[in-house]
Amino acid sequence: MAVNETERRAMTRALELAALGPRGVNPQVGAVILSPDGTVLSEGWHRGAGTPHAEVDALSKLAPGAAQGATAVVTLEPCNHTGRTGPCALALIDAGVARVVYALDDPGEVSGGGAERLRAAGVSVDAGEQARTARAVIDGWLTAQRLGRPHVTVKWAQSLDGRAAASDGTSQWITGPVARADVHRRRSLADAIAVGTGTVLADDPALTARDGATLYAHQPVPVVIGARSTPVDAAIRRHPHPPIFHATHDLSAVLGDLHERGIQSVFVEGGPTLASAFVAAGLADRVLVYLAPVLLGGDRLALTDVGVASIADAHRLTIDEWVPLGVDLLAVARPALGIESRAEPRTERASEPRTEARTEPRTEEGVA
Amino acid sequence: MAVNETERRAMTRALELAALGPRGVNPQVGAVILSPDGTVLSEGWHRGAGTPHAEVDALSKLAPGAAQGATAVVTLEPCNHTGRTGPCALALIDAGVARVVYALDDPGEVSGGGAERLRAAGVSVDAGEQARTARAVIDGWLTAQRLGRPHVTVKWAQSLDGRAAASDGTSQWITGPVARADVHRRRSLADAIAVGTGTVLADDPALTARDGATLYAHQPVPVVIGARSTPVDAAIRRHPHPPIFHATHDLSAVLGDLHERGIQSVFVEGGPTLASAFVAAGLADRVLVYLAPVLLGGDRLALTDVGVASIADAHRLTIDEWVPLGVDLLAVARPALGIESRAEPRTERASEPRTEARTEPRTEEGVA
Repeated sequence: MAVNETERRAMTRALELAALGPRGVNPQVGAVILSPDGTVLSEGWHRGAGTPHAEVDALSKLAPGAAQGATAVVTLEPCNHTGRTGPCALALIDAGVARVVYALDDPGEVSGGGAERLRAAGVSVDAGEQARTARAVIDGWLTAQRLGRPHVTVKWAQSLDGRAAASDGTSQWITGPVARADVHRRRSLADAIAVGTGTVLADDPALTARDGATLYAHQPVPVVIGARSTPVDAAIRRHPHPPIFHATHDLSAVLGDLHERGIQSVFVEGGPTLASAFVAAGLADRVLVYLAPVLLGGDRLALTDVGVASIADAHRLTIDEWVPLGVDLLAVARPALGIESRAEPRTERASEPRTEARTEPRTEEGVA
Repeated sequence: MAVNETERRAMTRALELAALGPRGVNPQVGAVILSPDGTVLSEGWHRGAGTPHAEVDALSKLAPGAAQGATAVVTLEPCNHTGRTGPCALALIDAGVARVVYALDDPGEVSGGGAERLRAAGVSVDAGEQARTARAVIDGWLTAQRLGRPHVTVKWAQSLDGRAAASDGTSQWITGPVARADVHRRRSLADAIAVGTGTVLADDPALTARDGATLYAHQPVPVVIGARSTPVDAAIRRHPHPPIFHATHDLSAVLGDLHERGIQSVFVEGGPTLASAFVAAGLADRVLVYLAPVLLGGDRLALTDVGVASIADAHRLTIDEWVPLGVDLLAVARPALGIESRAEPRTERASEPRTEARTEPRTEEGVA
């Protein structure tokens, strides 16, 4: 049967409820229980791993038998999995719910299949209501589910000729205030912010996300990667969140740990060694390059070695946007062939069609 | 008296005539002689150093006395200087010309003053007619006059991270066909194209300006700078123009020589050493950076050392345009403080106001 207006309004409310939950290992989900005549009986939402799922939270507020013949409106397909809580599909069936309206299918291999189970028990099920909004609410979670790790943004600022600093190490005023404000805003959208120990020792960054002189409401968790130890009086230790230290160069292990902690997105801020390591490993889902209109020359490179021996191995990017920021320019980019393709054998990649034929003879390329 | 419609039409024609002359040491100038009733008596234009100036060329086509009471319409102020030819102002006075209409003042210290001399002789003089168009016709010459040398464009192509090639030297397919076509078009607008001997030896470039498979009508003169010798079978030796060789690293001397040859604009195409030398010397009037959406890392840098020890010495640029070219991006830039300011003492430059305050504390700059 089609979703009616009352159910539609209930879904809008369920999406608001979902957003009350925390980002984390589990998705943010909201639920509204409607009586057969459309009255709201109860509301629920998920408060994070180990706490009841949204449907169960909503059901728990009702007297026994009160959900008999009711409709459950949920932002995500009820799970079919016994974890720290029982399967929600079963809880809904047991409570006598007659109909379920949900927005998004559960992408989980283990948790999916709830709709099928409900239908098998004679429950009327409608999927897809306000799916786009529901997807936006848990976009970070869906991405992390797909990647099997947090989404990684690697950011650096550089002179037009690719330097992060002048020869003596001074780097102040490479990019302007508009670009720096943009960095802080983007920091505030990430769950974590990662730097190498070299940057901690050289620059003693606070790693907070600041809107002018004040802190943004959301602060990314600082993550320090590398073998060297962080001084006890380092600014990072005064961050609103206690820093996570990873004394390793195994970036996959770091991301795996962050994933388990429920971190869905990481903003990698430097320095050149760490940024290059993420790019070289094919672990940069998004690259943000802030280009300042200045030439520096010298050996303080914004990227060092990214594992490219020959031009055929180049990390080709797709530019999603060139964003003018005052006198600076931001390149928002991602790997041109997608993360998955990077793992494919070279012969496969070489045979892929390119959108632009490049037939200039070798001899002219040096001055092409 | 005001310029009348007949004189206006004559100036439009004189500008067409000017463009028939060659670019070179002298400006391109055209002239039309009108009878007192507005009939065109003769036309003339300048065909290059050592040949008659436009006014004299036009007068030479008339019978003695035919210019009595006539009006001379000229695209540049008649000269007041005896060089390889006599002063045009005097020639006009001697011919009995009663009125002179010209477009642009002569900027030359030696050649200027013609208008004054004409007026002193009782000739009616009007200046400024169609001056904007006249300026466009001899833009390159005016710039070279102002600079005292050819205008220099330094161009290079690089990966987003500032590399000209991968570690093994391969560079094919860094920029795409749209960017490369743009380079050839811009080459065709320059009087000369300069490369270092390193580039000649490494890449054996043809240094022609090509529109697809065909040559542009105008080809820049190839200039090879550096101590090493060019092989007898180098492609550059088959260029439509014989190459000019400068076995020196003194760029001012090179530009001085090219200026004396009447070359008004030079397109510097590489490699990294030559480009860096021009930037370091403050001799890059325009910088063209073709940015390809690719990351390479490694040590094949598009710019090497540009004489910047500390960030305060950075070569700051003003971006005139960011031009999307297929998937690539072209930065069209010039020195932010102008050529003249580069020669000023450091203390002067440091005290100049900046358009954007940059007050971020040093400790955060590494991760701006």
